[in-house]
Amino acid sequence: MAKNVIEFSSDYNEGAHPRLMQRLVETNMLQTYGYGLDPYCDEAADIIRNLCGNKDLDVHMIVGGTLTNLTVIAASLRPHQGVISPTNGHIHVQETGSIEATGHKILTIPSVDGKITAAQIDEYCKDYWNNEGLVHVVQPKLVYITQPTEFGTLYKKAELQAIHDACKRNDLYLYVDGARLGYGMVAEGNDVDLPFLTECCDVFYIGGGKQGALFGEAVVIKNKAIAEDFRPILKQRGGLLSKGRLLGIQFSELLKDGLYFEIARHANEMAELIRSELKNLGYEFFVENTTNLLFPIFDDRTYEKLSEKYSFTYYKKLDNARSVIRIATSWGTQKHNVLELVNDLKAEQFAQYNKDRCKLKAEDLAA
Amino acid sequence: MAKNVIEFSSDYNEGAHPRLMQRLVETNMLQTYGYGLDPYCDEAADIIRNLCGNKDLDVHMIVGGTLTNLTVIAASLRPHQGVISPTNGHIHVQETGSIEATGHKILTIPSVDGKITAAQIDEYCKDYWNNEGLVHVVQPKLVYITQPTEFGTLYKKAELQAIHDACKRNDLYLYVDGARLGYGMVAEGNDVDLPFLTECCDVFYIGGGKQGALFGEAVVIKNKAIAEDFRPILKQRGGLLSKGRLLGIQFSELLKDGLYFEIARHANEMAELIRSELKNLGYEFFVENTTNLLFPIFDDRTYEKLSEKYSFTYYKKLDNARSVIRIATSWGTQKHNVLELVNDLKAEQFAQYNKDRCKLKAEDLAA
Amino acid sequence: MAKNVIEFSSDYNEGAHPRLMQRLVETNMLQTYGYGLDPYCDEAADIIRNLCGNKDLDVHMIVGGTLTNLTVIAASLRPHQGVISPTNGHIHVQETGSIEATGHKILTIPSVDGKITAAQIDEYCKDYWNNEGLVHVVQPKLVYITQPTEFGTLYKKAELQAIHDACKRNDLYLYVDGARLGYGMVAEGNDVDLPFLTECCDVFYIGGGKQGALFGEAVVIKNKAIAEDFRPILKQRGGLLSKGRLLGIQFSELLKDGLYFEIARHANEMAELIRSELKNLGYEFFVENTTNLLFPIFDDRTYEKLSEKYSFTYYKKLDNARSVIRIATSWGTQKHNVLELVNDLKAEQFAQYNKDRCKLKAEDLAA
Amino acid sequence: MAKNVIEFSSDYNEGAHPRLMQRLVETNMLQTYGYGLDPYCDEAADIIRNLCGNKDLDVHMIVGGTLTNLTVIAASLRPHQGVISPTNGHIHVQETGSIEATGHKILTIPSVDGKITAAQIDEYCKDYWNNEGLVHVVQPKLVYITQPTEFGTLYKKAELQAIHDACKRNDLYLYVDGARLGYGMVAEGNDVDLPFLTECCDVFYIGGGKQGALFGEAVVIKNKAIAEDFRPILKQRGGLLSKGRLLGIQFSELLKDGLYFEIARHANEMAELIRSELKNLGYEFFVENTTNLLFPIFDDRTYEKLSEKYSFTYYKKLDNARSVIRIATSWGTQKHNVLELVNDLKAEQFAQYNKDRCKLKAEDLAA
Repeated sequence: MAKNVIEFSSDYNEGAHPRLMQRLVETNMLQTYGYGLDPYCDEAADIIRNLCGNKDLDVHMIVGGTLTNLTVIAASLRPHQGVISPTNGHIHVQETGSIEATGHKILTIPSVDGKITAAQIDEYCKDYWNNEGLVHVVQPKLVYITQPTEFGTLYKKAELQAIHDACKRNDLYLYVDGARLGYGMVAEGNDVDLPFLTECCDVFYIGGGKQGALFGEAVVIKNKAIAEDFRPILKQRGGLLSKGRLLGIQFSELLKDGLYFEIARHANEMAELIRSELKNLGYEFFVENTTNLLFPIFDDRTYEKLSEKYSFTYYKKLDNARSVIRIATSWGTQKHNVLELVNDLKAEQFAQYNKDRCKLKAEDLAA
Repeated sequence: MAKNVIEFSSDYNEGAHPRLMQRLVETNMLQTYGYGLDPYCDEAADIIRNLCGNKDLDVHMIVGGTLTNLTVIAASLRPHQGVISPTNGHIHVQETGSIEATGHKILTIPSVDGKITAAQIDEYCKDYWNNEGLVHVVQPKLVYITQPTEFGTLYKKAELQAIHDACKRNDLYLYVDGARLGYGMVAEGNDVDLPFLTECCDVFYIGGGKQGALFGEAVVIKNKAIAEDFRPILKQRGGLLSKGRLLGIQFSELLKDGLYFEIARHANEMAELIRSELKNLGYEFFVENTTNLLFPIFDDRTYEKLSEKYSFTYYKKLDNARSVIRIATSWGTQKHNVLELVNDLKAEQFAQYNKDRCKLKAEDLAA
Repeated sequence: MAKNVIEFSSDYNEGAHPRLMQRLVETNMLQTYGYGLDPYCDEAADIIRNLCGNKDLDVHMIVGGTLTNLTVIAASLRPHQGVISPTNGHIHVQETGSIEATGHKILTIPSVDGKITAAQIDEYCKDYWNNEGLVHVVQPKLVYITQPTEFGTLYKKAELQAIHDACKRNDLYLYVDGARLGYGMVAEGNDVDLPFLTECCDVFYIGGGKQGALFGEAVVIKNKAIAEDFRPILKQRGGLLSKGRLLGIQFSELLKDGLYFEIARHANEMAELIRSELKNLGYEFFVENTTNLLFPIFDDRTYEKLSEKYSFTYYKKLDNARSVIRIATSWGTQKHNVLELVNDLKAEQFAQYNKDRCKLKAEDLAA
Repeated sequence: MAKNVIEFSSDYNEGAHPRLMQRLVETNMLQTYGYGLDPYCDEAADIIRNLCGNKDLDVHMIVGGTLTNLTVIAASLRPHQGVISPTNGHIHVQETGSIEATGHKILTIPSVDGKITAAQIDEYCKDYWNNEGLVHVVQPKLVYITQPTEFGTLYKKAELQAIHDACKRNDLYLYVDGARLGYGMVAEGNDVDLPFLTECCDVFYIGGGKQGALFGEAVVIKNKAIAEDFRPILKQRGGLLSKGRLLGIQFSELLKDGLYFEIARHANEMAELIRSELKNLGYEFFVENTTNLLFPIFDDRTYEKLSEKYSFTYYKKLDNARSVIRIATSWGTQKHNVLELVNDLKAEQFAQYNKDRCKLKAEDLAA
């Protein structure tokens, strides 16, 4: 299963940033109460409230994104309500029906690059509210988006503001899944910061597990209707970690002096090294972005060859000879591995060979 | 919230045994695939299969007992089936309706000391199978017990065997929650070992989070009907840890050379120091046991006094002046703290004062 | 399955009161819109609001008690909340886990005769609200009781008032299942009427299916928090009848001029004929009541003999020779059948034979 | 709400066929046991087994299609499994998330006219079974289709056979929702009969509520894995009617001598009168079919005018001036009403006016 390869398959192939490990070791034998009621969790929550510029936020730290998503959504909805998601949203395609298992329908809005628009939300809700037979249709109540998206793309301030406004108009909550939020916040071209995100959202989370922590997502809840019962619902879903301090310690260390953003910047720089080389060599990308996930189009023969030495994620087949591949860098990606990949790409001169056949065509996006 | 006290409130007040921390640090930057598909998880599973004396077991490691219980139970039952539990079973009284949130009813059997009997199971099922109106009643399909129980008591081999037989007779699965299994296995008077437990159960788990690990419960599934879909159901419930190796590394270290049992023995010895002193001083216990949880009866005034320096868990009120208190030791309990407690108990001579009023009466058990 | 016997097994052995059948036939070919949005449903709702003395009630008519109970409860609770029920409550023992299938736990309060008290509710909630670890325990939010109870017993005004007050004190909704409400309202000794019930409850239902209708329960919702989303949740659970008018027509006919109460009176009179004869003959009753369900204690040999000609419901075994039997009368019970039963009871002089052995003992109630 | 109009809005605007009403009246005071355990239900089940040409079928009769669908699907799936449905399937768009409320995801396959193909099923499942990360994706296990579809279109024998084969290849159950099965079976061009349907399906239902009964859907289960626990699961969902005989009586009457098909033929003939006139007048249809639901494209001004006198169902907007309208006939549609509509259509000569603008264009289907 675990091959002896250089990993670019995801941003959770390593453990945690060494500073976090050190802090966990230092605090290891100190005694604290459990379930998030300890000084480290308090400290982390305070740091997060400060970074978000809002003293009145509920903060809960949870092990794992799926558990986080299903708990937030279950805590937000009445039985007949559903959550709007892009068709390629993580909750819709990668979590084995976890949301439906809480009893709620996912209401999809078409998306190619992971993003949806305020206009699409308005359109969806118009259909709902115009429909006399409301009773027969799931009521949209929450919008789920990711920042950055599964494709590494980013919402700009203006787009998020418009989505926020559409949510208000349509009586919807807005929830932003920030599994890779750090990589997005330091990406070239990004203009969304934590205070702005806090303004826009009812609830969002700051991902830790893919950005330097062993695990952990910090849910930030601004809306009191969602915050009110969050802890018992989290417990019910199995998400209240007995040694909650493990989460508090890691988030404190990541966020107290900017480590979180510093290591995210490293990941993006590593991605940019690969991206610019691929472009030099003439490769095209399924989606353009500036974060730590790349989606180049590879000839299948090339992909196989590279796979002997490197591990990527196979995203999808485009046709009989070409596929979309996902290359991920992370806080833990080592530069010498990146340079090795870059050299191998050059040496093989895949690009020359593939130039024409790997061009992205309009119909590739339609599939 | 976190007071500067000596903790005896639970067995999850510290981090992990230093050997586990060291191993986590050593392996920190090695790259592995996620979701439990890494060599450390494979190694841990092999060690567990060896210890259980059965090569054909499915092993899954999960963060947290509630998540473990709800996933095992959801994976075992059809919609109209329920799980039999003692009235004081953890799933019934301490997990915020997590089982019901998966759609299943808990069918309770009365218990005072945490245990139930084969005869009770037979009786319960006779009522069900004799009832013409089967259709109107939840079908019992799974028996949930804990070893040791929430009260630190233990099933003997003969009792477990009888329960196993009752389950077979009544077409029931048997599931043993081993959140504190290690403390039980090394306890004085215990005669149940892992191979015997494996023989008796369809599924059980070896608790790590209370016994030397940062977190982690290792679910051991013998019954193929439960094993078959376990991974996707685990993912659906949010229990598939992305960096699954953290679980594999810890369980390997705990179990490869007996560390798990060695540190459990320490906890039990620490408990015995307190237990024997309390008995010397004339205290009575709500429940007698030989493991790491003590349930002495304290005068309320005494409890308050001790609470200035020590943290216990308040279990329940007996009457206007007396309460049952839970004192927990663990792998991490330091002997000097235990001796300090013992001395304080002596010095105060609570026993003298309380001797009579703290006698346990028959009616105390009925409540 | 269907034996050629005289039925006293339940109050749903016949179809509907002939006046309802006639009205259904008369209106059969008239065209209306579906889903409860028709003039008959409007009319029935108005009649009910009038009878309850409150113009501001939501009324929904549903086919079947289980569907009614599960929808009301699902519409009332947040995910971490549960419903308090007597241990012998219908939702707890006779509906195959229907409430748990909506994700909610039933929190039981001991009951022998089907009733619970305000003091028990206070006690239960004190335990909850006093418990620091609220997060680990299901929050009680709704009290479910039946009027009359499964045992045909009745809450008096003062008792209901006290329960209402306890609910207010403990931030609980009160829900009264009135599957046999009519039989209760006209019973000797009853002092609860519809306006009083409306005052006390957040939501209750007026049972039709056991009291003269083919089917149908009329849910009356006073609390706006429960009413708000009731229709879409009802639809989601499959309870929105397409030809909703069938419910409206029947409830209008039953309630517009007192037919509902008149035929309930008949059922109670038929029950009283049997009850007084049984008492004459020395039989004892498991529970005393004045409504249409009788719970005499029969010698098993006697029960078998009678069963050749009559159908009763076997309630439970008391010991090796005696059982509790349920005898039900209804709006449709024919007097000549009752007199035949009375004569057979006399002729057999069971009482003489059984007098001593059928005495109810204290321990019979404890089981 | 209920306007004084001629109803063509649906096929449940009337009560039941007079023969059914008469039978209900005749049997009204006979006593039977409840919950489907009565001779009428046995008789109906036998008739159905005969018509289907298979003695080994489980038959359950249920009030309402939503309840039927959610129970069948809940009884068929394990927690991590989902149901494949056309994008316009009733369970996906018209039942308020009832399937998701049982915990299961609906997996959609694109459809314009209500139908899907075997090739689409193969394609969907290939994606699933080819995906290494099975664990992160809902497993398709059941295919849900309707015959006739929501658009009144029909699967031919060859198509159903191909779908059956695709299901076998991909380890899927096949479930056919026959809410309007009778209208389909007697439609021009149909070649699917009950024995063939039985051969193809694991489970299907024969709709009664839209085809001459007051209510009622007869679920026919061939697959023992689904049949095994169906009754307790049906009870749990609130679908076990206490006076089950009401269902048995109606289905017996409908099916014992072909009444069901005879009255369906009437509905189709009434539809054909309208259809052919609309075609004469130059109207186009959103979907072509031969059953009782018509989907003409109307100019909005025309639709408004007709709506003063007739009630249709507004299906959807095509552009600023045109809409798709649904006209339904039923067993109860009176010929003079149909002729009146036909005359009004002529008189208005809408067609002349709309001829060009109401042409269906390619892009209308894409929306």
